[in-house]
Amino acid sequence: MTLDDTSSTAPGFFLSFEGSEGCGKSTQIRLLKDRLEAEGQPVVVLREPGGTAVGEEIRHLLQHGKAGEGMSPEAELLLFAASRAQIVREKIRPLLAAGTLVILDRFLDSTTVYQGMARGLQLESVQAINAFATGGTLPHLTLVLDMDAVTARRRIDDSGRELDRMESQPLAFFEKVREGYRQLAQAQPQRITMLNADQPPEALHGDIWSLLQTRRHAL
Amino acid sequence: MTLDDTSSTAPGFFLSFEGSEGCGKSTQIRLLKDRLEAEGQPVVVLREPGGTAVGEEIRHLLQHGKAGEGMSPEAELLLFAASRAQIVREKIRPLLAAGTLVILDRFLDSTTVYQGMARGLQLESVQAINAFATGGTLPHLTLVLDMDAVTARRRIDDSGRELDRMESQPLAFFEKVREGYRQLAQAQPQRITMLNADQPPEALHGDIWSLLQTRRHAL
Repeated sequence: MTLDDTSSTAPGFFLSFEGSEGCGKSTQIRLLKDRLEAEGQPVVVLREPGGTAVGEEIRHLLQHGKAGEGMSPEAELLLFAASRAQIVREKIRPLLAAGTLVILDRFLDSTTVYQGMARGLQLESVQAINAFATGGTLPHLTLVLDMDAVTARRRIDDSGRELDRMESQPLAFFEKVREGYRQLAQAQPQRITMLNADQPPEALHGDIWSLLQTRRHAL
Repeated sequence: MTLDDTSSTAPGFFLSFEGSEGCGKSTQIRLLKDRLEAEGQPVVVLREPGGTAVGEEIRHLLQHGKAGEGMSPEAELLLFAASRAQIVREKIRPLLAAGTLVILDRFLDSTTVYQGMARGLQLESVQAINAFATGGTLPHLTLVLDMDAVTARRRIDDSGRELDRMESQPLAFFEKVREGYRQLAQAQPQRITMLNADQPPEALHGDIWSLLQTRRHAL
């Protein structure tokens, strides 16, 4: 694979959040963004698919297209990858070059875990496609908000929201996802950190804030 | 790579046409389709991107989306691959299983030649993504309509049509494309055959017809 990333010396910081549904990602991203902004630090939160004109059209295709119902898992994975290829080149790299702290609400590890490990697409292929899509632009730090599957499930059910396709998966799927993240974190401990997400939001936010300070200063 | 194709023993026949712009592909596909239909043989012509609901949305995104202008080559390749993954599973495999002769107006070799060889994306990545998208469903026979770049260029210019993005490329690009197909044909002679396209359409059609009969009976 040719990795066309030339941003490894960029002054920004690239942080991604991962975890199963119900783990509290959205809350933690909001808390972190608010605090960074209050301190006057440049921060941008992005999500996939989306974040670019190409990505938003792909998001629409995946979520609302008539096409969605009969979509093969392979086509779905490649559409996610196309959105990722675009957001990396159009947004993430320029933002990092400008010194921004870029937060991704899910990035390549979600694809590896959800499509590769939990859904059973060939892991080697998923990783090759991820490598092509990112071109070597990886997060400096990836935080996995870890929570046991039963608790995550209960938090979703208690939310009273209408559940989406992922949230409606059986407990066994949540367990596969959790185990998938565990394996990734073991394989790439320098990038991926698991955090106990079964604690009050403010306490978890404190852990995240400390870790982020340490890692940014270590760059 | 896991190749999930299980159609290698399907009763149909899978034929793809390749070649640079101006080589006469459309004419030859029409002549062949008309003759097969006149003989009462089941035949379906498909094109990429498109051919499925997912694929048509991707085609629209690639050709008409506001998104198109700033699209990265990586995102473009992955969108083509997504359309391919879908058409293979939704159309090509079921048609082959039903005994149909399936004709593709360009297939994976176009991606290898145009995005890989001529545009300079890493060939290894392009091939890995092609393998994932096709899942091992390859044409039984691929016909490259070969023509020298100057003649192809002149035929396009003489057509009086408004030129699209590929047709407007400089002569050197046409030469790279031709050389790319040559290399593929040398590497995979059992699947890919080069035909001299600089002859009257009826004569070329005669060559194609003979070759197709021979190869179908050899299956």
